[in-house]
Amino acid sequence: MRYKIMVEYDGTNLVGWQKQKDGPSVQDFLERAIYGFSHQTTEVYGAGRTDAGVHALGQVAHFDLDSPLNAFKMQESLNALLRELQAPVAVINTEIVDDSFHARFSAKERGYIYRLLNRRGATPLRLNRVWHLPFPALDIAAMRQGAKYLLGNHDFSSFRGAGCQALSPVKTLDKLDIDIVGDEIVFTVEARSFIYHQVRNMVGTLSQVGSKKFAPEDVKRILEAKDRTKAGISAPACGLYLNKVMY
Amino acid sequence: MRYKIMVEYDGTNLVGWQKQKDGPSVQDFLERAIYGFSHQTTEVYGAGRTDAGVHALGQVAHFDLDSPLNAFKMQESLNALLRELQAPVAVINTEIVDDSFHARFSAKERGYIYRLLNRRGATPLRLNRVWHLPFPALDIAAMRQGAKYLLGNHDFSSFRGAGCQALSPVKTLDKLDIDIVGDEIVFTVEARSFIYHQVRNMVGTLSQVGSKKFAPEDVKRILEAKDRTKAGISAPACGLYLNKVMY
Repeated sequence: MRYKIMVEYDGTNLVGWQKQKDGPSVQDFLERAIYGFSHQTTEVYGAGRTDAGVHALGQVAHFDLDSPLNAFKMQESLNALLRELQAPVAVINTEIVDDSFHARFSAKERGYIYRLLNRRGATPLRLNRVWHLPFPALDIAAMRQGAKYLLGNHDFSSFRGAGCQALSPVKTLDKLDIDIVGDEIVFTVEARSFIYHQVRNMVGTLSQVGSKKFAPEDVKRILEAKDRTKAGISAPACGLYLNKVMY
Repeated sequence: MRYKIMVEYDGTNLVGWQKQKDGPSVQDFLERAIYGFSHQTTEVYGAGRTDAGVHALGQVAHFDLDSPLNAFKMQESLNALLRELQAPVAVINTEIVDDSFHARFSAKERGYIYRLLNRRGATPLRLNRVWHLPFPALDIAAMRQGAKYLLGNHDFSSFRGAGCQALSPVKTLDKLDIDIVGDEIVFTVEARSFIYHQVRNMVGTLSQVGSKKFAPEDVKRILEAKDRTKAGISAPACGLYLNKVMY
C-alpha cells in the first residue's frame, strides 16, 4: 500500500529534510514514527529536500507499507508517534495512492514562499519564522522590477549554491511575486524544480536591489554572467517555506 | 520626559505582563532594559495586564525618564538591551508624549484577537501561537449566531475569571467578529475594558456552541444567569493576543 502524506514542519532545529548523521531530520522522524506503530522499516521519499532551518507548510512525501490502515487511521497513528518523539513535524493530510505515484518524480511544480520583515524592531512572535531585516527601508517597486528578469527559462548559475547536485543549472521560473502581506514582504516563487539555494540567492539579491546596492537592471547582468560571485547575498533559511507541491 | 512605547511579545515563557516573584514578566524585562542603559529606576505602566502565555502584537506602555534621548534612540537602546537580556519582547514604536498621557487610564478601547486552528493535524509552525482544537469540526455559523448575544452592555459575571479585580462585571462589548483567515478561525474582540479571563471564557463557550454542546441561544441564557458555572470552558492562553490599544 502506498501512502501520500502532506507534512508541516518547523525546520529551526532540524538538519533539514534528509537523514544525516549529525542531527534530527524530517525524514528520520517520519521513518521512526512509522516504525513505532508498524514495526516495519520503510523509506520515506520527499518532494523537495529542504535545508537546515527551512520550514514546510505543505511538503509532500510517500512511503510503502503492508498495512490494513485507512488514510485517516494512518495519519492519526503517525501523528501520535510524532508527538511522542516530540518532533516539530505533523502530518496534515494523507491519501492512499497508486504505486505509480512518486512524491519527487511525479511532481509537476513546487511552490515556495519567503517571508521578510523590514522594520526596526524585532519580532519575538515570528522569531525564526521571518528574515528580520531592520534597515534600510526596501524599495519594493525596484525589487519587483528586478524580479521580472528572473522569470522564464534561464541558466541560473549565478544563483546556484555550492554543492548543487542538479544536472543542469537551466531552470524555468514560472512565478516570482512580491507582495505586502500585513507588515511583511512575501515572495511567492514557483517552478517545476530549483537548483540548490536558488530561492534564497534570488531573494537575497533582490533585497539588495531594494536597498539600492543593485539597480533593477543589474539582475539581468548578474543572470547573464552565469557566475555566483556576481550575485548578491543568500537570504537566511528561517524565512523560507516549502509551501506546496503540485502533481 | 514621558515615553509611550508599543511592544510585541511572545508570552509563552513569561508569567505575564506584570512583575511577579515566580518568573520573568514583560514589565520586569522593560524596567531592566531601561535601567541597563540609563541607570535610572523607573516603573513601566501597561495598558493591559496580560496573563501568563498570552501574547501581544501591540501592547502599549509608558514610563518617565530624565533623558535627552529622542524617540528613535530610545527605541534602539531599549531593543539593544532587550536582545542582551534574551527577552522575548521587542519595542516596535516609540513616541515622546505629554505628561497627561497614561497607558492604562487614557485608553479608550482595547482590541484582542484569538486564533483557533480546527483540524486533525497539529501545527509545529504555530505551536503556542494558536489553540489547536483537533475535533469536532466547529459550526462557525452557529458560533457567530451565539456571539451576537454578547455584544453590547451586559453583566458579564458568567464569563468572569476567579480572582478578578474589576470593580464591576458590567462591561460594553463593542465587537466580536469571527472570521476565517487562511486555515484559522480568528475572533476579533473590542471593548473599552474587559473583566478577568473574559475573552478566553467567551471564546471557550463559543467553541462549545461550535461543537454543539450549546445551542446559540444558550449564550443568552448563560449571560443572564450571571453565574460562571453556567458558561463553558476557558480557551487556553496561547491563542490570545493583545492586538491594539486605542487612545
